[in-house]
Amino acid sequence: MANLKPIEQKLAENARMINGYLERALSGQEPEPLGKASLHLIEAGGKRLRPYLTVKACEAVGGRAEDAVPFAAAVELLHSFTLVHDDVMDHDDLRRGKPTVHKVYGMPLAILAGDLLFAKVYDVALKNRPPGMPPERLIECIDKITEATMTLCQGQALDISFPCASDVSVDDYIEMVGAKTSALFRLCAQVGALSGGGSDNQVDTLGSFAWDAGVAFQIEDDVLGVTADEATLGKPVGSDLREGKKTLINIHALENATGEQRKLFDKAYGVEDASQKDIEAAVEALKEVGSIAYARGVADEYVTRAFKSLDAIPDTPAKDELKALVEYFVKREY
Amino acid sequence: MANLKPIEQKLAENARMINGYLERALSGQEPEPLGKASLHLIEAGGKRLRPYLTVKACEAVGGRAEDAVPFAAAVELLHSFTLVHDDVMDHDDLRRGKPTVHKVYGMPLAILAGDLLFAKVYDVALKNRPPGMPPERLIECIDKITEATMTLCQGQALDISFPCASDVSVDDYIEMVGAKTSALFRLCAQVGALSGGGSDNQVDTLGSFAWDAGVAFQIEDDVLGVTADEATLGKPVGSDLREGKKTLINIHALENATGEQRKLFDKAYGVEDASQKDIEAAVEALKEVGSIAYARGVADEYVTRAFKSLDAIPDTPAKDELKALVEYFVKREY
Repeated sequence: MANLKPIEQKLAENARMINGYLERALSGQEPEPLGKASLHLIEAGGKRLRPYLTVKACEAVGGRAEDAVPFAAAVELLHSFTLVHDDVMDHDDLRRGKPTVHKVYGMPLAILAGDLLFAKVYDVALKNRPPGMPPERLIECIDKITEATMTLCQGQALDISFPCASDVSVDDYIEMVGAKTSALFRLCAQVGALSGGGSDNQVDTLGSFAWDAGVAFQIEDDVLGVTADEATLGKPVGSDLREGKKTLINIHALENATGEQRKLFDKAYGVEDASQKDIEAAVEALKEVGSIAYARGVADEYVTRAFKSLDAIPDTPAKDELKALVEYFVKREY
Repeated sequence: MANLKPIEQKLAENARMINGYLERALSGQEPEPLGKASLHLIEAGGKRLRPYLTVKACEAVGGRAEDAVPFAAAVELLHSFTLVHDDVMDHDDLRRGKPTVHKVYGMPLAILAGDLLFAKVYDVALKNRPPGMPPERLIECIDKITEATMTLCQGQALDISFPCASDVSVDDYIEMVGAKTSALFRLCAQVGALSGGGSDNQVDTLGSFAWDAGVAFQIEDDVLGVTADEATLGKPVGSDLREGKKTLINIHALENATGEQRKLFDKAYGVEDASQKDIEAAVEALKEVGSIAYARGVADEYVTRAFKSLDAIPDTPAKDELKALVEYFVKREY
């Protein structure tokens, strides 16, 4: 771990703790194929950004990290459940560089593994209440988990319902990303703050912070999709282009690219058999049109808003770590 | 309603109340296609046996029916969620005589509608706590909902994992039915009794009653699959035969049918293009082998066990209604 940045070291430490917890929560599941299918995506790795956010939100209100761990595990289970089902719906073959659950175990077990992971979210949250958490607060956590999940379903349905990016405005995009990504980020901060005994105000404030950070995170994800390399992405570069995905970059290009740049974009956008050369030319066009810079600018605005929310939270190392987390995933150059 | 039996009248009244509640709980869901997909199966009807069981368990411990209604709606949402997903997994085209959700709205929205229904289970249970229910009791309800769902997932996985009925013993069948059907019946009785302020003992006793009743119900469902008509079933008669389903009847026949009867059975069992005549001949063979009578006998044993559990519950009209419910669905000749 010698070359890791401090935030990367902290994420790795946190991930080890959360992974151990998750493996225990899912171990011994019968019948075996269901157990394996539910663990498949979790074992494929991931940075565990959401559990880290949960733990740090707990510490930021003066709580102990260990009290947040069950909820941190619960949000990762919720995240996994949505990814497993999304991959079935989108017929995606790869996730985190590995074959998706339905590719390995078939569609029926993938649906079922997602359902089980969803139930486990509640199971883990209910069975491991931090000592001293009043029952009404646990109910509030369960309620927020439920609200977030309903919003996630809505976001995914919006994504499915827009047939193509040309029908999607920037506002639609922000609404969709809010529902698909920010709702879960907000949940992490809320249940983290609740598990740490934060005030209602702190729960809301950290929730707002995480919502805005989530939007920035998703936009940066779009940016990485055309600027990072395949090993980092765990999927081919430019697949968002080839698949005609509704990213902020593509929406901007559809509204602003003209002439030669538009031609290059159209040769790759939504074209299943576009060559790697077509993709590279389209990425160049995106740069020239300013679509990538535009997306980065919007992400920066959301980071500024997120940090502003944190002004209302006392200065602590945890608050600095929350900021470092956002800076890490918005400015990531890995 | 002049020709309805008393239990049928009561079920119909209860269904009206529950349906109104469910429609309100799911109304206004955005985006519209998701809202429609989630309501599709609920609007297709059904007797609402499970909500009735919930309400009557509440009354049987001295509670007020209205206090059980949110939980009665929640168990029906849970039932719907599992049916919508099961139909996707099993590629079934018909349910309650209507096209399944994925047939009408496509696989992605069907998965999503199931997920939303699942989240709504918790939403409805959390947002409508009966006045005076202590928070710890609500947590107990949420915990039992979660436990039951994990068991349902396990049951469905067992069903998927057994490749064919010849590998399934009667004990395997009972285990699978317990997990797939009885776990939900038990949940109904448990949350009903909890919402009515029942003692821990009463919650357990009514849970045991409902577990055994659930096994009897499922076996009777197998029997109806070969003895009822298509209008009653909402699917073709004998489709359990044609599809090679692991019903108690088929398991018995595989172990006991020989000679001519076995030949007739084999001509229909698991044979996708079996003619209606083949099916009818196979059903005759099942009768001659005694497989249908055997299944009915096992169902009766479970009814006896279920009724025995009720001995520990005070005599009330609700207790009689619980018995009448079981008699209705085990001896149904509709």
